[in-house]
Amino acid sequence: MNPKQLAGEKAVDYVKSGMKVGLGTGSTAYFTIQEIGRRVKHEGLDIEAIATSIESERLAKEWGVKMVDFSEIDHLDVTIDGADEADANLNLIKGGGGALLREKIVAFATKFYVIVADERKYVPTLGAFGLPIEIIPFGWEETFREVTALGCTPKRREKNEEIFITDNHNFIFDCDFGLIENPHDVLQKLQGIPGVVESGLFLDKTDVLIIGNNDGTLKIIESKK
Amino acid sequence: MNPKQLAGEKAVDYVKSGMKVGLGTGSTAYFTIQEIGRRVKHEGLDIEAIATSIESERLAKEWGVKMVDFSEIDHLDVTIDGADEADANLNLIKGGGGALLREKIVAFATKFYVIVADERKYVPTLGAFGLPIEIIPFGWEETFREVTALGCTPKRREKNEEIFITDNHNFIFDCDFGLIENPHDVLQKLQGIPGVVESGLFLDKTDVLIIGNNDGTLKIIESKK
Repeated sequence: MNPKQLAGEKAVDYVKSGMKVGLGTGSTAYFTIQEIGRRVKHEGLDIEAIATSIESERLAKEWGVKMVDFSEIDHLDVTIDGADEADANLNLIKGGGGALLREKIVAFATKFYVIVADERKYVPTLGAFGLPIEIIPFGWEETFREVTALGCTPKRREKNEEIFITDNHNFIFDCDFGLIENPHDVLQKLQGIPGVVESGLFLDKTDVLIIGNNDGTLKIIESKK
Repeated sequence: MNPKQLAGEKAVDYVKSGMKVGLGTGSTAYFTIQEIGRRVKHEGLDIEAIATSIESERLAKEWGVKMVDFSEIDHLDVTIDGADEADANLNLIKGGGGALLREKIVAFATKFYVIVADERKYVPTLGAFGLPIEIIPFGWEETFREVTALGCTPKRREKNEEIFITDNHNFIFDCDFGLIENPHDVLQKLQGIPGVVESGLFLDKTDVLIIGNNDGTLKIIESKK
């Protein structure tokens, strides 16, 4: 079994009937949704779910998973999502897919947050993956200067040679900070810049990190928080 | 002369030829723009300006003020704007007009920040004016719960019985915190909530506060920062 499938399916152990479940996005969370869907369809698993992307919502609906939104429920019991990087403190960089704000709102709404990844995503220090930052278009040049002054090289994301626009009508800048030795400091500074909507730093949120290794084993790291 | 005009015109003393100038919005900043416009048209004042609203831009253009944007200049020398409340530490609540993000980006880009107001806006402690907060529509119910948990009563802003939408496609919540004894703490907590784009707390930014009194006198408070 490939390491993404291994991790993605293992995480479904945390999902029980009656729960409100957040469904993540990406190539590892894909396997989570497939396995949840299978249990809903064939084993009577009964949950309500919110997805972090249109694609994940569509996939879950194909299996018959009941989808809701935040006007119908006031919390999630468990969320299973992927990450672009995770360190040993279970801090994350997310947002490679461009849905970082939606993913962060879901992460804040959930009581138990499970991250699934293959071993390549597990790093000693965050930062090899450029940090995605969502930025308001008005005055973006000024916001760009403020972000650059924190010591990074931001690059506005494009898709098919056009400017990438998020679901919230904003830009994404992928910011190369080099290795991020103090992610809390970087996050707080970014939050202080007007025009920065959100960054891909997800700190102190993860309860369990499930890593699928290439040799077919699993590594499971629980939060000490 | 009415106190708004008194303060608004006095602030123009800070504007000199060759400067890049931020033009604010509202009933007091209106008099600033009128006076700047008069000097541009009749006294040869030569500046480049960025406005915090479409209305202010239009007014300045009528006088022949040269308008630019952040792709053309990398800072502002001086900005003159109004406020909904200002305290003795020169901390502000702004955003009653709904343009708080644009106003804050301009405030961050400026080297010298002048606030003009009439005496009713000058308060011992911020908070009698509900704090405007700009919020992303996706998952706003969850963001609403997080903001409420800070100890305020948020109310979604409406205009003509419809939901008010900002230039950035977002909602405004006017949040009654009661008196805000520790604005830095409130600002930092708000910045940590995903879905909160910006708040109307403008802290440690103002260099000079110019207050027009009803008796026709001026009170000028300079920052100790």
